[in-house]
Amino acid sequence: MPTQDTAYRLRQSPPTIGIVGATGAVGGELLSILSERDFPVRELRLFASPRSAGKTLPFHGHDIGVEALRGDSFNGVDLALFSAGSGTAREWAPVAVRAGAIVVDNSSAFRMNPAAPLVVPEINAAEIVRHDGILSVPNCAAIIAITPLWPLHRRNRIRRMIVSTYQAASGGGAAALAELIAATRAHLAGDSHAPRVLPHPYAFNLFSHDTPIDPTTGHNDEETKVINETRKIFGDPDIRIGVTCVCVPVQRAHSAAVTIECERRIDPDEARALIAAAPGCRIVDDPIANHFPMPNDATGIDDILVGRIRRDLSDPSGHSLSLFVAGDQLRKGAALNAVQIAEHLLP
Amino acid sequence: MPTQDTAYRLRQSPPTIGIVGATGAVGGELLSILSERDFPVRELRLFASPRSAGKTLPFHGHDIGVEALRGDSFNGVDLALFSAGSGTAREWAPVAVRAGAIVVDNSSAFRMNPAAPLVVPEINAAEIVRHDGILSVPNCAAIIAITPLWPLHRRNRIRRMIVSTYQAASGGGAAALAELIAATRAHLAGDSHAPRVLPHPYAFNLFSHDTPIDPTTGHNDEETKVINETRKIFGDPDIRIGVTCVCVPVQRAHSAAVTIECERRIDPDEARALIAAAPGCRIVDDPIANHFPMPNDATGIDDILVGRIRRDLSDPSGHSLSLFVAGDQLRKGAALNAVQIAEHLLP
Repeated sequence: MPTQDTAYRLRQSPPTIGIVGATGAVGGELLSILSERDFPVRELRLFASPRSAGKTLPFHGHDIGVEALRGDSFNGVDLALFSAGSGTAREWAPVAVRAGAIVVDNSSAFRMNPAAPLVVPEINAAEIVRHDGILSVPNCAAIIAITPLWPLHRRNRIRRMIVSTYQAASGGGAAALAELIAATRAHLAGDSHAPRVLPHPYAFNLFSHDTPIDPTTGHNDEETKVINETRKIFGDPDIRIGVTCVCVPVQRAHSAAVTIECERRIDPDEARALIAAAPGCRIVDDPIANHFPMPNDATGIDDILVGRIRRDLSDPSGHSLSLFVAGDQLRKGAALNAVQIAEHLLP
Repeated sequence: MPTQDTAYRLRQSPPTIGIVGATGAVGGELLSILSERDFPVRELRLFASPRSAGKTLPFHGHDIGVEALRGDSFNGVDLALFSAGSGTAREWAPVAVRAGAIVVDNSSAFRMNPAAPLVVPEINAAEIVRHDGILSVPNCAAIIAITPLWPLHRRNRIRRMIVSTYQAASGGGAAALAELIAATRAHLAGDSHAPRVLPHPYAFNLFSHDTPIDPTTGHNDEETKVINETRKIFGDPDIRIGVTCVCVPVQRAHSAAVTIECERRIDPDEARALIAAAPGCRIVDDPIANHFPMPNDATGIDDILVGRIRRDLSDPSGHSLSLFVAGDQLRKGAALNAVQIAEHLLP
């Protein structure tokens, strides 16, 4: 039911939708998820870099041509879903907004901009109404690590968290995923394979997340995003966060080992019940079958899988728990989260 | 220089050496490392399960036959290096001791037995003299995570550590490694592959360590070993440890993200210098080149690689650091550590 204050919503429904970065890994997921969720679409326009222009992508049984971005590309576009890099977002999102579109951006370009809500709908959908034309989808590792923590934080404030990630190749885009496959295939054939997209050999190997390191903190950009974005999404600038981001030879779905310390005692069973009742999360916590969250199980589904919920044995106070999560970073970590935000924008 | 108290040493040198579990992943490494390090050998005898008996393995240019264990197998054996399971160790190590051998056991059978020293020579070589015939090599994940922590602990006691592991397939033995390769090959060919050795599909997937879960603590056996063995090796029963053990699709070399909290302030540069000066560790910590410890680099070498040494941003007191390590779990995590112990036993 629309409220009186509807200025934050799209100007018409069904909206004309533009996808920027349509040929990328997240772009493909956006097309699937719009279709799966029967998102209303008046017209769909697909944009990508000039080298992808002229390709077509199928949507609802039609082949839609991919266009390069131009100054008038956003004329008539109501909703612009950006899944390109932050450079593209910085350049073109303001153009889209001036043309009257609302932008939902998957890049980091506007995430820490106070005017841009940074939204995981399961956590802070209320922020959506405050936008100024641009809303941001958080970093994929942050979404997957913290969505299951929100029901705990709301009940019993998390004052400290320590996160170690196990991030999939496709978090680095389609080219990184292709490199994992090519490198592994070459390795198994006994051939050499020189890394091109990534800085290190990826076949049966893992490496620290390949984003630049802040010389002051020693943390890479991915880690800094997890820290800063979690504070903004939770609306809690004082939450203390330690994080290590690691790329593992998994195709899809990020995992994370998380230890949290709450203000008060917290019981694993209580945490399990709170997470089980929370939207977007599914408990997979079967010690008898040794079945816990795995990227294979998380791939292609909407829910973040949560398990290994147990006391952190390093904190005798009983305030701390450890858990393990896995979530599809192209879906909940990016495209699904963007479409969920867009659903809140429908008139 | 032999001390007066030499009762803990082997009765002769060169010793006759028996390797139990010679055909396994660690057994093969034992043969390589004995050779690489010119360990004195009077005679080498190889033992394995009856189904491997009759095979031969090369050592110093000779093919040595593999025998099944029998009641008189250890007659004349001075040093028995066990790299079989804990069941085999429990059954046969006492037989070897009764025959006059000193046993260095890679299994968990005797690790928490107060009479059996649990030794990482870089940490507690002094314990070796106390043995009663059996010495234990610690769990591989524990060795790799804590060897680099010892120089810090000695200077500025570590009161809490939180460890997330990234464990290689060969930690589960040669069959687990073969399954990773076969599953990945099948996956890339578009074929199905049913897991046999491991409980979960392993191609481009990861899973919680597949050891039984303690229903009281919710921790698996691997995690419980890291906790209990670290306390015994460090001689510090009060150190508080939280750990999550995860199997990743890496062939060889375990990695771990480690966060430590010390009694007093600790500076990353100070920690780096202490670890750089410690035996068995090598600093790989280049933020400009984004080069940090990786399993690929750790495979086949003796040193544990240590990097990402930085402040834990979740602890404003300055007492906490995070770091990332990678080490060859078949070498330093098992065979090399066993041979290092044996070197201390030479008369």
